[in-house]
Amino acid sequence: MADEDAVFDVIVIGAGPVGEIAAARVVRGGLTAAVVEKRLVGGECNYYACVPSKALLWPMELAYAVSRMPGLGLRGPIDTPAVLARRDEVVSNYDDSGYVDWVEKLPATFVRGHGRLAGPRRVEVTTPDGDVRGLRARHAVVIATGSAPDVPDVPGLREARPWTNQEATSVQQVPKRLVVIGGGPVACEMSQALHSLGALETTVIVRDGRLLSRIEPFAGELLALSFADAGIDVRFGRSPVRVERLDPGGPVTVHTDDGARIEADEILVGTGRRLAVDDIGLGTIGLEPEGPIEVDASMRATQVPDGWLYATGDVNGRNLLTHMGKYQARICGDVIVARANGRPDDLPSLRDTADDRGAPQVIFTDPQVCAVGLSEAQARAAGFPVRAVEYDLGQVIGALLQSPGYTGRAKLVVDEGRRVLLGATFVGPATVDLLHGATIAVTGEVTLDRLWHAVPSFPTTSEIWLYLLLECGL
Amino acid sequence: MADEDAVFDVIVIGAGPVGEIAAARVVRGGLTAAVVEKRLVGGECNYYACVPSKALLWPMELAYAVSRMPGLGLRGPIDTPAVLARRDEVVSNYDDSGYVDWVEKLPATFVRGHGRLAGPRRVEVTTPDGDVRGLRARHAVVIATGSAPDVPDVPGLREARPWTNQEATSVQQVPKRLVVIGGGPVACEMSQALHSLGALETTVIVRDGRLLSRIEPFAGELLALSFADAGIDVRFGRSPVRVERLDPGGPVTVHTDDGARIEADEILVGTGRRLAVDDIGLGTIGLEPEGPIEVDASMRATQVPDGWLYATGDVNGRNLLTHMGKYQARICGDVIVARANGRPDDLPSLRDTADDRGAPQVIFTDPQVCAVGLSEAQARAAGFPVRAVEYDLGQVIGALLQSPGYTGRAKLVVDEGRRVLLGATFVGPATVDLLHGATIAVTGEVTLDRLWHAVPSFPTTSEIWLYLLLECGL
Repeated sequence: MADEDAVFDVIVIGAGPVGEIAAARVVRGGLTAAVVEKRLVGGECNYYACVPSKALLWPMELAYAVSRMPGLGLRGPIDTPAVLARRDEVVSNYDDSGYVDWVEKLPATFVRGHGRLAGPRRVEVTTPDGDVRGLRARHAVVIATGSAPDVPDVPGLREARPWTNQEATSVQQVPKRLVVIGGGPVACEMSQALHSLGALETTVIVRDGRLLSRIEPFAGELLALSFADAGIDVRFGRSPVRVERLDPGGPVTVHTDDGARIEADEILVGTGRRLAVDDIGLGTIGLEPEGPIEVDASMRATQVPDGWLYATGDVNGRNLLTHMGKYQARICGDVIVARANGRPDDLPSLRDTADDRGAPQVIFTDPQVCAVGLSEAQARAAGFPVRAVEYDLGQVIGALLQSPGYTGRAKLVVDEGRRVLLGATFVGPATVDLLHGATIAVTGEVTLDRLWHAVPSFPTTSEIWLYLLLECGL
Repeated sequence: MADEDAVFDVIVIGAGPVGEIAAARVVRGGLTAAVVEKRLVGGECNYYACVPSKALLWPMELAYAVSRMPGLGLRGPIDTPAVLARRDEVVSNYDDSGYVDWVEKLPATFVRGHGRLAGPRRVEVTTPDGDVRGLRARHAVVIATGSAPDVPDVPGLREARPWTNQEATSVQQVPKRLVVIGGGPVACEMSQALHSLGALETTVIVRDGRLLSRIEPFAGELLALSFADAGIDVRFGRSPVRVERLDPGGPVTVHTDDGARIEADEILVGTGRRLAVDDIGLGTIGLEPEGPIEVDASMRATQVPDGWLYATGDVNGRNLLTHMGKYQARICGDVIVARANGRPDDLPSLRDTADDRGAPQVIFTDPQVCAVGLSEAQARAAGFPVRAVEYDLGQVIGALLQSPGYTGRAKLVVDEGRRVLLGATFVGPATVDLLHGATIAVTGEVTLDRLWHAVPSFPTTSEIWLYLLLECGL
């Protein structure tokens, strides 16, 4: 320990939504905290992912809803500059002073710079002007540095300066011709958003046989129908083999493994994320530098002596979802406080029980795709006695009233032994807020026989619950 | 018993959604059923209430959503003829042949006519051509005749031929000037719907100090702000004292108790319902002819010897909500089957546990008003150790992304002893499907400590759950 190190109870490296919550919880518990961030406070999610993407997607969702409703019509296509201006507003024009204020008012000490572990309980921060500042933690260091978009090794791809979620969500000039690599949530959301905002010629190259391959198959199938209706060209079972951009300001050409050649103005890669743990000093405490940082259910790193290191959010490899990271951060912050005060650290609120079985996800496409818990395939692979039931959302009068000609589908995965839900999937317009009921049912292990008495209001889309339970034999 | 009586296991009088479900459940259980209806099969709800009103309201909701979203604009006001055509479609042009087919395919025997009890287990049906047909039930008669709009005793009101929900939802020509009496769900929904479709001068006369007086106070307050913004004139604390319509095709004048005088083209009454039990022969079996028909938790009438009479839906006075009637009908049908077969009749699925504590309701205004379980006032009056928490939905980023400038509020009523929810209320745009999660939590008695692990997806409006739980001290 250097004499001039500043000392805090807890040091949090990374001030995205996850690090912020971890700091807030430890401060709430009476500890002091320093928060270190080299980029924008608020994190990838708020500036370059979840938040701006939804600002780009909701106008599209609403435009689709209007197109289905007799008696309403839009005066023209979506006004892209207005949507981009709204996007700028929701990302605070990429100015993080509001978030910095929020951290300082917790109160916590904000340190701008690149934080690296420098041995047990010690962090060195390289500040923007190149100084190195030493910090020391009495109780804990929390790593919450998140993840960054990954670019696959395709010849010529990196040189072609591809867009990732960062460039796509911060788009200033929507390309007319767009080629997208990937079929996961980011690729699907941004294909549809940019298409709706002017990327009229959008081509999506998907290695798998379907979109959203980790979700129940009907999700990707319904989404593919929507893409086809909108005129988005999806090439299934194809991979890029070579990419060329001869002129830095010119078009990009993608060659795929079937010999096809696609020319576009921009190329967007949405094929995965890498954990943002390079160059944070994991080697100084004997951890593998590439991560993930393995943690127990209290978010404490399992491979570090004396239990002072915690990792929350993407870096622990549990779930690459903002809300699950925030959940972990609440647990992590609270458990640090309990241990610092010698209080019981094994209360139910101090253990992550949701990541394995209750993590929900929403993909804000049209149709929206909402899933929680296990898919049927996952539940069967895990050995549960599974009963799976499906129902056509287009048969639910509440859905048809909200959205004439409604197309959608829902599914429950039931543990027949305990008669509780293991998972649920809803695909269709305006299904986004149907999901949390399923999350409560899965997490709360509410039995089918109790769910039978939870009456959905008529005529709402939520009546899908009634039909799904009838399919379960109730 | 007359020799020529047709004999069925079960006779259901009333073929609205409730009677239909009761018949379907008894037939599913292997019994025979006759279904008697004098009016349209499908019931008030499908032709003159829940269903057409939502066809009139959803375009308005969507128009409001567009008005709040930068980048989108409507090409003009709502196209009223197109909305009315859509309404005609959802009510099948007031032709019930589809529902009759549905009943006959259960299979059940459909008898068109006015059914009256004629002593124990016997029903007489006066058919449209004036014949009287006798029916006899081996096991049970189910009364599911519902309710009808009530018109209060105001001098001149009946003579002025006021609209009720029936005329309002089946409107062919939207009046330019409309006066509405009442501040409950029907009055609020239809005021806003008709205003959006052309009733530009709409005045609402509300006896109470607020709209929706049975729901948490902030619901009516937020709705009143919306009415004011839209230019709907609400007169609180006022009652009509005299109504005049001199010329049958001319304007109507309403005098209120403050001496004011409102002239309009039509007057709509939404002040309550009366049970549709007059002239169904309750006197022939010794029951009070005006109802309600008191039932136990299995829907069996408590005042009738030998336990052959059941009453489901509005007529038993438990809840005037279609979905609760359908719920009761499922219980009723199943319990009749169990008793007819000498099987246990006291399983949890054969008792109504939701009407008292878990009945949800949605009012499809803008903002939508969604409530389940007990209000804070009801919970305190019932003696529960109550903690009530509220949160501004306009602080939830998911809500703001979906609807810029979002205004709304949510509240949980918690039983501090058992740490479970007693009730929940959500008021704001697009809150309709937030409700069912609360219904599951209330009905399933999911504890706060379990709800804490039910993580809402980011960035959705469902994150309100997180903030409400934080307000509970979690």
